[in-house]
This record gives sequence, C-alpha cells and structure tokens, in this order.
Amino acid sequence: MEYQTPKFFHVMQYADAADGDTIDMVSGNPDWEPPAAIREGLHEYADGDAAEFQYPPSDGLQPLREEIAARRNVEPDRVIVTNGTGEANYLGMARALDSDRGSEVVLIDPVYPYYPGKASMLGGETTLVAADRDGSLDTAATCEAIDDDTALVVLNTPNNPTGAVYDLDAVEAVVETAADHDALVVVDEVYDHFDFTGDFESALTLDADNVIVTSGVSKSMAITGFRVGYAIFPPALIESAKTRHMLVNVTTSRPAQQAVYQAYRETAPDYYADARDRLQERVETFTTALDAAGAEYTRPDGAFYVLARFDDFPGTMANVKLLIDEAGVAGMPGATFGTAREEWIRFALVTPRVEAAAERLVEYFAD
Amino acid sequence: MEYQTPKFFHVMQYADAADGDTIDMVSGNPDWEPPAAIREGLHEYADGDAAEFQYPPSDGLQPLREEIAARRNVEPDRVIVTNGTGEANYLGMARALDSDRGSEVVLIDPVYPYYPGKASMLGGETTLVAADRDGSLDTAATCEAIDDDTALVVLNTPNNPTGAVYDLDAVEAVVETAADHDALVVVDEVYDHFDFTGDFESALTLDADNVIVTSGVSKSMAITGFRVGYAIFPPALIESAKTRHMLVNVTTSRPAQQAVYQAYRETAPDYYADARDRLQERVETFTTALDAAGAEYTRPDGAFYVLARFDDFPGTMANVKLLIDEAGVAGMPGATFGTAREEWIRFALVTPRVEAAAERLVEYFAD
Repeated sequence: MEYQTPKFFHVMQYADAADGDTIDMVSGNPDWEPPAAIREGLHEYADGDAAEFQYPPSDGLQPLREEIAARRNVEPDRVIVTNGTGEANYLGMARALDSDRGSEVVLIDPVYPYYPGKASMLGGETTLVAADRDGSLDTAATCEAIDDDTALVVLNTPNNPTGAVYDLDAVEAVVETAADHDALVVVDEVYDHFDFTGDFESALTLDADNVIVTSGVSKSMAITGFRVGYAIFPPALIESAKTRHMLVNVTTSRPAQQAVYQAYRETAPDYYADARDRLQERVETFTTALDAAGAEYTRPDGAFYVLARFDDFPGTMANVKLLIDEAGVAGMPGATFGTAREEWIRFALVTPRVEAAAERLVEYFAD
Repeated sequence: MEYQTPKFFHVMQYADAADGDTIDMVSGNPDWEPPAAIREGLHEYADGDAAEFQYPPSDGLQPLREEIAARRNVEPDRVIVTNGTGEANYLGMARALDSDRGSEVVLIDPVYPYYPGKASMLGGETTLVAADRDGSLDTAATCEAIDDDTALVVLNTPNNPTGAVYDLDAVEAVVETAADHDALVVVDEVYDHFDFTGDFESALTLDADNVIVTSGVSKSMAITGFRVGYAIFPPALIESAKTRHMLVNVTTSRPAQQAVYQAYRETAPDYYADARDRLQERVETFTTALDAAGAEYTRPDGAFYVLARFDDFPGTMANVKLLIDEAGVAGMPGATFGTAREEWIRFALVTPRVEAAAERLVEYFAD
C-alpha cells in the first residue's frame, strides 16, 4: 500500500504558497458556526466527574446511540458510534470484504477517493461505473456490474462531488440486485442535512438486510475535527462490526460524543435550515457565474460542491494551479474523483467568499 | 470473526448485578483526577474559533506531534497521533501483517487479550510463548519461536497483567532475532509512567529499524475515554501506516488532542510522581494482604495490576463470581490472558478501596 499525499493537500499547499490572495474552494470544511450546544456541551463535560473521562461503552454512549436510533427510526442495538463517518464507512466496507462474498467493490464514478482507497486497503478490487452526465445513478449499468464476485457496492447520496440526490427507486434496484448476488451495499448519507430538493429518502427506509447506512455530524454540525459518526447495520451483521470497532479503536472519543449528544438535544431545526439556505444562496451565486463564464455544470441537488467544465480548460492539476495563480480561486482537479470527470473541476461552496470567487471566474474566463 | 462480549464486561455486569457491595478491581480505568490542564484545555478549546473545530492534520496537531517527539527524542515525522494506544497497536500490527513478512504473530503469555484479537482480525496466526514465572521475558524461548514465517512480535512493558518491566537487554535480543527474520516488533509502552523500579528503558533507545513503539496518555493522564495515543515508526515504515490511519479514521478527535497538548505543556512532574506513589502504596497494601491470605503472586515492578494464585481456588470464571458473591471483590479470571495463568486472578489497583479489598480477601481466605 503506497502512501500518497492526497491531491487535496497538494492543492492546498500550492494555494497557501501562492503569491496572491486565493479563495479556498478545495476543502470540505463547513465555514459556519457549530451549534451553540457543541461549545456548551464541551464546557459542561470539562467540569464533570473524573469517572466521565474514562472509557464509554465501545459502541458509544448509550444516550447518544438512543438519540441517533430515534432520529433514524431504528433499534439502538443496530447503531455503532464511530470515529467519524470515515470509520463508519471502513467498518461497513470491511464487513463486506471480511467474508466469503467475493472481492469486487462496485463504486460510482466520479467517486469520493476514500472509497477506492479503503477498498484497496481491505483487499478489494474496484470496478468503477460511470454516473449519468447529471450525476444521477445509472441504475442499469450499476446493476449490470454486480455479479457473484461482487462483495460490496458503495453509494453516496447526496453525492460528493456531483451534488446528485439519488432516487430511492434507483437505490432500491441496486440493493435488490446486490442481494441477489449476496453483496452488501454501504450507503453514505453524511450530506443528508444538505438536500435542496426535499425529496431525499434514506436507504434505511428500504429496511433491507444487506444495507449498511453511514452518516455523521461532521458536516451537519460543522465539526469535521470532532470525529463523531455512526454506522447502522442490519441486525445479522452488526456483531462482527462491533468487534472490529473495538479492536481498532476501542471506542470513540468521549468529550466529542458528549458535546454531540448535547447538540442533538438542544439544537433547533432552524440551525440546519439556515445552513441549507445559506448553501442554496451560494449555489445560486456560483452557478450564475458559471453560466456567465460559459461553463458546463450540473446544479447540485444536495451536498455542497459544484463540478464544472470550462471550454478548452480541462481540470488538470496544471490548470488548477493556473487558476490559483491567475484567478485566485482554488478548486480540485477532476482526476481526484476517478476517471469520469477528468475534464472537470470541483468547487466546494464552504467559504463566505463564494461571490468573490464567482466574480473572479467570470472575469478570468471572459478573456 | 465472531463477536464475543469480552470477559471484562461479563465480570463487570455480574458484579453490578450482585446483591452485596462489590469492590471493582476489574477495569483498567484510573480512579484519580486527570491533570487540571485537561479540564482547562477543553474549556479553552470550547471557546476557540470555529475553524479549530475542523479537521486537524491527519497525523495529528503539529504542536502535539512535536511535543510527543521531543519527549520521546525522535523526529516529529516518525509520530502518528492515534485514537488511543489501541489504534496505535492496530496500525503497528497491520504494518507487519500487511506485507510479505509471513503471518505468524508471536505474543507473550499471559497476554493482553486485544493483541490476539487484532492479530486474528488482521489475518495473523498467533503463537504464545510463556513468560517466566515472575512475568519477565523468557528471552531464549521467545527468540526460538521466531522464524521466517514470523511477521511480528508484540511486547508490552511495563506489562499488563503481570506488572513485569522487561530488561532492555532482553528486548534487544528479541528485536535482533526478529530483524534476522525480517519481522517487526511492536512494543506497547502505555504504562511507561508507572515504573516502580526506575529502570524502565524505552525500546526507542535501541534505535532499531524494525521496532514500532506505541503509547498514549489514557493511563498517565487518567483519561481512557479521550482516545489519544501515538505510534512511533521507523522512517521507512511510517508512510503506509499514515495511509491506513487516514483511510480508517481520517484523524484523531481534535478537542481531545488539544486538551492533551495543553496537559503535556502545563502538568508538573509531581502529578505523575503522585500517581506512581499512590499505586506503590496500594501495591504494598495489597501484597501484604496476599501474604496474609497465603497467595502466590509476583510483586509488580510497573503498571497497576497484581496477578495472584490462591491455593485450591483456581481463577476460573466460576471462582471469580464466587469471590464477588462471598467476598465482595471483583477480579479478572486468568483465562482472559491466554493459557499460562489460568489458575490466577488479576486484580486492578485503580480503586481507592484497595485496603478494604485486601481486608476482605484476607478474611475470605482465612477460612
């Protein structure tokens, strides 16, 4: 397994070192305040009894698991609180590959690069299936890629980087085909609070015994550094995932769990709605600029990224650097996300300077 | 991989459900206050800028890595900050097994049960080598067990459960034999602050290119729930370990990292000395009682456990339960720790009630 400095860091380092002012549209860190209860929860925890500084249960603080279970309408014993959605995906993917289900992992291209990385680390072989041009699931092609050697399909909806929100019918078709071939499906719903359509439905509603749903609060509560996520397993699959979680991490950091529990309890729906509205405004601002710049793009239905393609300006690392140097806007090269969008550049809308970035792009591509 | 409720939990649940008052000598949670700077560090972090709530570098906050590196006298780029010593051991063990080094893992019996658990999860085959009667390393037997199929040896010093502090010469002999067979050695030093001999020397002083040293602050700062540990790799081995850390966990929870950094900076040596002195007094109290009860034991040189064997009272789960019911003292059955100490019971000295427990045992075994 080779270590590669992720392109992510490479671009950020380049942007930091650039002479001029650069607007960072690279990272996926929310730029707004976390819920007030996050800060309050940390303060209260810090003053608590020393016994509360010791190991919580391996699968998470019981009230937090119950809160998550209630919100997701599942039994608490199906929930593992994980070190972020990243660990949740690792546990779900390992559950599929740590068995006799085969070694093929079907991923959708463009693809969040951690998925093929994890698949490879776990001994899986990746098959990429291209999404439709607008980012939606190509159900027929995805189902066709699933065969008896398929151990796992990973879906991400709302999607990073395309912004697509998958139709539940399409997800269901994939889940059923996977079940026919004894394959599991991990559905990463970490952007579930950023659905602009109102139509997003969790894969949990399918109540399928081969579906593992992962999510977390990194994005929804603007605390990517806290590392609090969760995996929801079908009852028959959870015990060995708990073992792996215990053997890898023992448990998830308790101050973070306690603060998140408090934020779940005390944060009004307005907080999430405001973040979503803010992003929708940014989408509007940014896509208007893309129109003016003559770019091709798909208006995102969810998450907080826009993939764009500029005429005669493929989204290579070289061009991304040129955009930093000459326009002062940093995006991510399309090749980061598989092979389907190598011509494209991903822009993350988690900066208060979206409007300035939009103006810079319009001006740059007007030449 | 089967999920088993660890014996640990089984005994604790039994003790909780018992009619009488039970003194918990099962868990390894320190019962004393964490450094004041842990609480202060959380408060300060809670009031910080929202940007500090986002992803830290994957391998840890840079000042924390530098602090650890300075304390351990290594270059910072050899350090990964992990989700507790548990993840550090996982990364070290995976580094050995995720290669062409073979599949055998040599462990010392009695053994901390997470090691064979991790070895099995990672596809390794465990070979147990019995420690000497006093818990010290049987160097000849350990070296003899190492052959070309050996990928990894795991050592733990100061040792859980025996309390042994290994001679550096013995560790060096094992490291050299392992090197001859292209095997790695993970040395878990999480109890390094609890050395009663003054003679403990870290395996880092060997400066060997096949040694990975792991540790953490769970025990030394009395914060097992925070999950802050670290692994120190030889330069040639660290890059793929960083990749695994990133792919499994992304990074370690930031509030915990920040509090630990502050505690490293602001905690006087007295704090650690007081904890060590407290434990030494408990060792004295408890072993005096074991003498009175006619038990066999080895006086621990480090860590905070005592293994004891009572005549005609083997340390089975049944007898451990009997001791809870009839003496009001909960220990751990010897079979938890491999096969070498099945007759023994482990008592953790991390309770303020060691003296009462000692009296109860004297009375119980006086009959």
